[in-house]
Amino acid sequence: MSFTPLRNDRLIKALLRQPTDTTPVWIMRQAGRYLPEYREIRKQAGSFLDLCKNKELACEVTLQPLRRFDLDAAILFSDILTIPDAMGLGLYFSEGEGPKFERPLRSQADIEKIGVPDPGESLRYVTDAVTLIRQELDGKVPLIGFSGSPWTLSTYMVEGGSSKDYRFVKGMMYNNPKALHQLLDTLASSVTAYLNAQIEAGAQAVMIFDTWGGVLSPECYRDYSLNYMQQIVSQLKRSHDGQTIPVTLFTKGGAQWIEATADTGCDAIGLDWTINIDEARQRVGNSVALQGNMDPCTLYASPEIITAAVKKIITDFGAHDGHVFNLGHGIHPTVNPDHLAVVVDSVHKYGHQIRQTKI
Amino acid sequence: MSFTPLRNDRLIKALLRQPTDTTPVWIMRQAGRYLPEYREIRKQAGSFLDLCKNKELACEVTLQPLRRFDLDAAILFSDILTIPDAMGLGLYFSEGEGPKFERPLRSQADIEKIGVPDPGESLRYVTDAVTLIRQELDGKVPLIGFSGSPWTLSTYMVEGGSSKDYRFVKGMMYNNPKALHQLLDTLASSVTAYLNAQIEAGAQAVMIFDTWGGVLSPECYRDYSLNYMQQIVSQLKRSHDGQTIPVTLFTKGGAQWIEATADTGCDAIGLDWTINIDEARQRVGNSVALQGNMDPCTLYASPEIITAAVKKIITDFGAHDGHVFNLGHGIHPTVNPDHLAVVVDSVHKYGHQIRQTKI
Repeated sequence: MSFTPLRNDRLIKALLRQPTDTTPVWIMRQAGRYLPEYREIRKQAGSFLDLCKNKELACEVTLQPLRRFDLDAAILFSDILTIPDAMGLGLYFSEGEGPKFERPLRSQADIEKIGVPDPGESLRYVTDAVTLIRQELDGKVPLIGFSGSPWTLSTYMVEGGSSKDYRFVKGMMYNNPKALHQLLDTLASSVTAYLNAQIEAGAQAVMIFDTWGGVLSPECYRDYSLNYMQQIVSQLKRSHDGQTIPVTLFTKGGAQWIEATADTGCDAIGLDWTINIDEARQRVGNSVALQGNMDPCTLYASPEIITAAVKKIITDFGAHDGHVFNLGHGIHPTVNPDHLAVVVDSVHKYGHQIRQTKI
Repeated sequence: MSFTPLRNDRLIKALLRQPTDTTPVWIMRQAGRYLPEYREIRKQAGSFLDLCKNKELACEVTLQPLRRFDLDAAILFSDILTIPDAMGLGLYFSEGEGPKFERPLRSQADIEKIGVPDPGESLRYVTDAVTLIRQELDGKVPLIGFSGSPWTLSTYMVEGGSSKDYRFVKGMMYNNPKALHQLLDTLASSVTAYLNAQIEAGAQAVMIFDTWGGVLSPECYRDYSLNYMQQIVSQLKRSHDGQTIPVTLFTKGGAQWIEATADTGCDAIGLDWTINIDEARQRVGNSVALQGNMDPCTLYASPEIITAAVKKIITDFGAHDGHVFNLGHGIHPTVNPDHLAVVVDSVHKYGHQIRQTKI
């Protein structure tokens, strides 16, 4: 398959810590409920899962934010739970309660029954969407592929949905670590195959979302989450079609452990807003790029305050290469879309300005 | 009022970093739903708030865990939202949804209407319970009084209950910081008066729970949470009735900021489980005592694994003075109470052993 060459490569360059004319910006959940045009398509599609599994509609919602905002990347519209769904756990979304599984994994026997899904079969709808989006983007900006981390996927699979206390998965972690390691190992192989398939289908960068790594103790984070992300990083296709494919790891609540995360060999680390980006940069040095890290609630503020908040993060990071602007978590559904335009334009303005001051 | 002298002063000594024969232990929410005898009283009382406001029943549930376990402290049975309730916001608990306020504060005008409640009036039921519990304890172990932190109280008061995104309170923080500072200032005065009243009524140590400080950026934590806790610490009665009253600050998700927390002049810092206690001690040195920090989910493990987890924390802290064992958050309602006995007995065993190895 051959695609149009990339015209805006700021994201890829910044993830690889190469010079750019300004700071690139994209926003987690930029294709989402805060956009009226998204809500319109969502209504047409039926359920959220129906939307994920319809490649034309998934492509359409992926492209929607790019029509409104001067974003430097598209991210595949999908869900982190596609892998467990493909494993046959029976994913469904109950209104107001988030994702649920009909058949959660509670025992070693449950875990032994599951295998690594072939991305060319049960996840074909994802790679098809990737290729279609890449074609439709026509070189405008790069397309980011993604997956949930093994630990984060395991929390949903063992709990049977979202959790407040992680009772079952942590119970397994403490009482039957062998079973949980077996599950995480299967998930690491699955995520590797899944992300490599996305890369082959056209994803130009990939990101692993470890949404729940921050609920672990330092040792458990290392052994049950980071360890498996590292395994994936070491087995990903890091170049494809003559292009380097950067890998970003994002652990929400993981700011304490960024040195260890940088040591996995990833290209970039996603930061939530509980750490100052200058402190993060001091701690990891120039070994990785940093993505983030504005509090998503800043978007409830006035344009003037949003602009000042953007300027502060750009200034705190300083005139270095290797910063991708983003929020520290997904954009909230109740945000005014015009406020996101303020973010994007301010990032480009101050990202350009700070490079002029470079010595 | 005169009370029986304290026979077990391990907690007070450890909080003041003085030598003890073993490591003292108490457990957040030790009086709570995991105990069948608690559930029995809760049923008799009616609502959760009815239980908090009935001094005889509040005393009874406070004492229940001490009959089962060799704990080194009692903690007042109450709720962190007593202050906003006394301010007239109309606190109620809706089953499965947590606390709610009938009249949340959404504007400067709303905030200007509220004042500092007189603890001798609208919070009299709390101080009455403190005195009764202290009498009933009869010197067995010290009684800990507590309050929510101004920031944490403000999240409930502005949101109108629990929140996932803190949309309204952070919206106010970014758009109308003056209004939020005014609210936090009123809350700091209220918490100070409330904790001082608890101390006068018989509380022998006090703790401030900053349950939601961890959702803030570093600057916002400093300006909107820590700043007001520091104000309270500086105005508390630090001695009463000839005894020193230690103050503990606990910010869940606040491990990144323990140096700043130690600088408030508090006696001890509560830690959740996302930091190793030896690293925490290295960072704050001998300036404060540390309380914590076992993951509450460890209690879902077998007694052998629980014992090993206790031993690890005691060993990691080392043969120093100034450790109070606790969980990193409240005990979960579905825990087997026998597992808490394992924790308490292991703490005393290993806390004693490690002191024998002291050089």
